[in-house]
Amino acid sequence: MNESDLLKALQTLYSNRRDAMRREWKRDLPFEELIFNRWERAKSLGFAEGSSIYQHSYVFGDVKVGKNTWIGPNTLLDGSGGLTIGDFCSISAGVQIFSHDSVKWALSGGRAEYEKSPVKIGNCCYVGSHTVIAKGAASR
Amino acid sequence: MNESDLLKALQTLYSNRRDAMRREWKRDLPFEELIFNRWERAKSLGFAEGSSIYQHSYVFGDVKVGKNTWIGPNTLLDGSGGLTIGDFCSISAGVQIFSHDSVKWALSGGRAEYEKSPVKIGNCCYVGSHTVIAKGAASR
Amino acid sequence: MNESDLLKALQTLYSNRRDAMRREWKRDLPFEELIFNRWERAKSLGFAEGSSIYQHSYVFGDVKVGKNTWIGPNTLLDGSGGLTIGDFCSISAGVQIFSHDSVKWALSGGRAEYEKSPVKIGNCCYVGSHTVIAKGAASR
Repeated sequence: MNESDLLKALQTLYSNRRDAMRREWKRDLPFEELIFNRWERAKSLGFAEGSSIYQHSYVFGDVKVGKNTWIGPNTLLDGSGGLTIGDFCSISAGVQIFSHDSVKWALSGGRAEYEKSPVKIGNCCYVGSHTVIAKGAASR
Repeated sequence: MNESDLLKALQTLYSNRRDAMRREWKRDLPFEELIFNRWERAKSLGFAEGSSIYQHSYVFGDVKVGKNTWIGPNTLLDGSGGLTIGDFCSISAGVQIFSHDSVKWALSGGRAEYEKSPVKIGNCCYVGSHTVIAKGAASR
Repeated sequence: MNESDLLKALQTLYSNRRDAMRREWKRDLPFEELIFNRWERAKSLGFAEGSSIYQHSYVFGDVKVGKNTWIGPNTLLDGSGGLTIGDFCSISAGVQIFSHDSVKWALSGGRAEYEKSPVKIGNCCYVGSHTVIAKGAASR
């Protein structure tokens, strides 16, 4: 496929999807959010009914999410040491939740292993923008 | 269209646009920033002359932006309760400005409504990286 | 190219790459991370052996990175005033490292220039999530 044809086709697709999103939902989003679906993504990850997760989010390892939970853009959910999130939570934009860290890995020049410990967020939790939750934390 | 052909075409497009951006502007950016244009996006949103907004930014509801304002990547501008930003502002990377919140929605298990209140940022404001501005804030 | 054909082709490509990534690496990532390669990106930027940088990262100007350094998603590395990072570092998700700022530019209504000063991060450094490092900082 011709490179400049592909570029033009992507720009036209973006422009039209953007206009439709603005008209219907009064919001203006990155391209990935316009062509994929955050409810479909949540469902495919096994999250419970009514939950959604923006495309610009990173999910590592085993993450369980309950019903009607909103997971914002630019979030990072690390389930490599186990992560559970309940129902009716707001996981605000930019939140990072970790169940591992690489502190000792870095400080030892790669000799020490990553450390892991599970995290649990209960029901009806509001986690504010840019909050960082470290491994081992529990909220009920 | 064949899947592996599309993948190769996207990789070639990325590689060439990336090289051009590095040569001309000495910067290396995500794919969306290489194929779309942040001045065009700002203009299409009705922002005033000379303003720009990176593609990896989220704009919700009604947001007004003045002249020569720079809006960085990974920002979130929430105008669902009304948001105005003036001229010559730097809205640094990762900044989130809200005119609503879902605190009571989450804590009530979805029974309470979202709360809204407008935000106003004046002219010549520097908003530092990862700043979070909550609903109802005003700066002059 | 037909717009709805391109949309379907992108969605199929996304879905298949996503499934493969989940099967092989147990992680679920944005589209750009699924079709491009963060080790290739690091190498093309001249970063030393074993280092990687996620696609959702912004690199400005002249940035030097040593061996086996992990650079997470949603990071911003600004080398416009000079930036050096050593070996075996963890640059966590959301970190922003600046060697310039636009504080005086904004406050003066565009009359003052950007200010620059180099930054140096040594070996074996762990830089935690969402850390912002301002121009002129040095760590050894």
